[in-house]
Amino acid sequence: MSERRFAGIDIGGTKMLGVVVAGSDVVAEARVPTPKGADALVAGLLGLVDTLRAEAGDLDALGVGAPGLVDRDGVVHAAPNLVGVRALPLRSALAERTGLAVTVDNDATGALEAEWRMGAARGCDDVVLATLGTGIGGALVSGGILQRGANGFAGEPGHMVVHPEGPPCVCGRRGCWERYASGSGLARLARDAALGGRAGAIVEQAGGDPEAVRGEHLTAAARAGDAEALAVLDEFAWWVALGLVNLTNLVDPALILIGGGLVVEADLLMEPIRARYRELIYAPAFRPLPDIVPAALGERAGALGAALIAQDRCGETDRTG
Amino acid sequence: MSERRFAGIDIGGTKMLGVVVAGSDVVAEARVPTPKGADALVAGLLGLVDTLRAEAGDLDALGVGAPGLVDRDGVVHAAPNLVGVRALPLRSALAERTGLAVTVDNDATGALEAEWRMGAARGCDDVVLATLGTGIGGALVSGGILQRGANGFAGEPGHMVVHPEGPPCVCGRRGCWERYASGSGLARLARDAALGGRAGAIVEQAGGDPEAVRGEHLTAAARAGDAEALAVLDEFAWWVALGLVNLTNLVDPALILIGGGLVVEADLLMEPIRARYRELIYAPAFRPLPDIVPAALGERAGALGAALIAQDRCGETDRTG
Repeated sequence: MSERRFAGIDIGGTKMLGVVVAGSDVVAEARVPTPKGADALVAGLLGLVDTLRAEAGDLDALGVGAPGLVDRDGVVHAAPNLVGVRALPLRSALAERTGLAVTVDNDATGALEAEWRMGAARGCDDVVLATLGTGIGGALVSGGILQRGANGFAGEPGHMVVHPEGPPCVCGRRGCWERYASGSGLARLARDAALGGRAGAIVEQAGGDPEAVRGEHLTAAARAGDAEALAVLDEFAWWVALGLVNLTNLVDPALILIGGGLVVEADLLMEPIRARYRELIYAPAFRPLPDIVPAALGERAGALGAALIAQDRCGETDRTG
Repeated sequence: MSERRFAGIDIGGTKMLGVVVAGSDVVAEARVPTPKGADALVAGLLGLVDTLRAEAGDLDALGVGAPGLVDRDGVVHAAPNLVGVRALPLRSALAERTGLAVTVDNDATGALEAEWRMGAARGCDDVVLATLGTGIGGALVSGGILQRGANGFAGEPGHMVVHPEGPPCVCGRRGCWERYASGSGLARLARDAALGGRAGAIVEQAGGDPEAVRGEHLTAAARAGDAEALAVLDEFAWWVALGLVNLTNLVDPALILIGGGLVVEADLLMEPIRARYRELIYAPAFRPLPDIVPAALGERAGALGAALIAQDRCGETDRTG
């Protein structure tokens, strides 16, 4: 019998990344933009599964990580960064149309599963993961257990309100943490600086148009040593740290992992985040501080974790699902 | 052999409450103001133990609940609401000077232990407790386990920053949740309304002096149906709900308990808190909402829980400790 193959797909706010895992190897990988709307989302996922099957051959099961409120039956109740998706029975829809055994979990829950089993969180009983991407996802290991909460909705720190008069959020409130500390938040801070005339080198990176400024223009200018860009980066680090301190006050982790799309800028971001965290945490001299480190599995963590969860839950079912 | 007796003391920001539990009965109870400074605190606790012994006879063990960062050895590292207390080895100091086996835990952890075993949280695997008193304490049951965190510091939601430009906090930052949603926060909101001329009936309750306004003047005016007082109460409920929503986003509880000194005003507070919570939570129509209920054991929860923890941990040791 050939080695069994488990697919994992991570649905991001911007792109969907799929992998196929066989044993401890990734034997296929593909990505597509995240379509808008529930029907297009399901169709896009089916297309991605076809691509993975064409590359890797028959699959034994499929795991999916979706942002937002995903319950234990794989229904996506609501997701601020998936426009038009409400009460979508994603697990049953995919199972029916692929013929596979399918699991659907929160995306960050999957990412932490992967980091905990094979990445940066191995052996740690109290971990917080914050994934900084289009929005902010999160997941928790507390007391040696990956926590899903009463409904499967645990770990949505991005919608923690940190400034009630802050900018409006896609969730309908104002001043959610992800308005400041996500990839979109970084872009917004950079654009505000550009429009305020505080970011010449950043605007230059964006071809001279302040409105066109994105996060990567900021990080490029910061890498070149531009003082204004570094100041905006520090402001961003302050907001990231503020939320991490809030999470620490609640769950007291030994380890904080930073994942998501922004992890590719870890070399630039981690030191300012750690410095601001030490400034903001209560009584830093009188307590052990958690390690704050980048997730080790990079942008593939969510897809890998989804595949691992599918393997755990469906490993005993046969290929007909 | 007579029934064994376990003392529990809850150290609040304002008062210390002690009980002695024998079987399922409370056989003694006493309270004293919380002294300022580490030496005075220890002396005050020893005096309270003497009072409890005089009432209840010999004790088998002592449990203490202290606010702030209490580690697993019963060292109080720091506590924003206990002035002058830093790195205080409270457990060993009390054990040495009382001759008793002593446990020291976070105060709200004890309160939730009691509510979980004999109060409003019985049978629930995912619970958040927020104690609204001088500050805000908190504790978590996640996945059926009372969570203490990596260092014993889990459950300090009062110092979650909810407004970075808010009023200064005793912890050194600005805009912590407890500046708005504790008993002190309620008093501050009432005083602000009074000084702003928005609270005639509240000022009347305070004898005509806006500076003298306290929380009870607000609640008395609200009970009498005063519209301005009810508006301030609603503002307070909004802040309480905002923090509860933040906690929900992170840990997804099935049950939220409101404890602490303000629980005596539960009849006035719970409905506005629930209404504001439904307004602030993301996608309320697409998710089960947690029950939000007052703690059942009232202001004695912390002391009872401390006694229960002492009974669990020290029940097997003899009276010589």
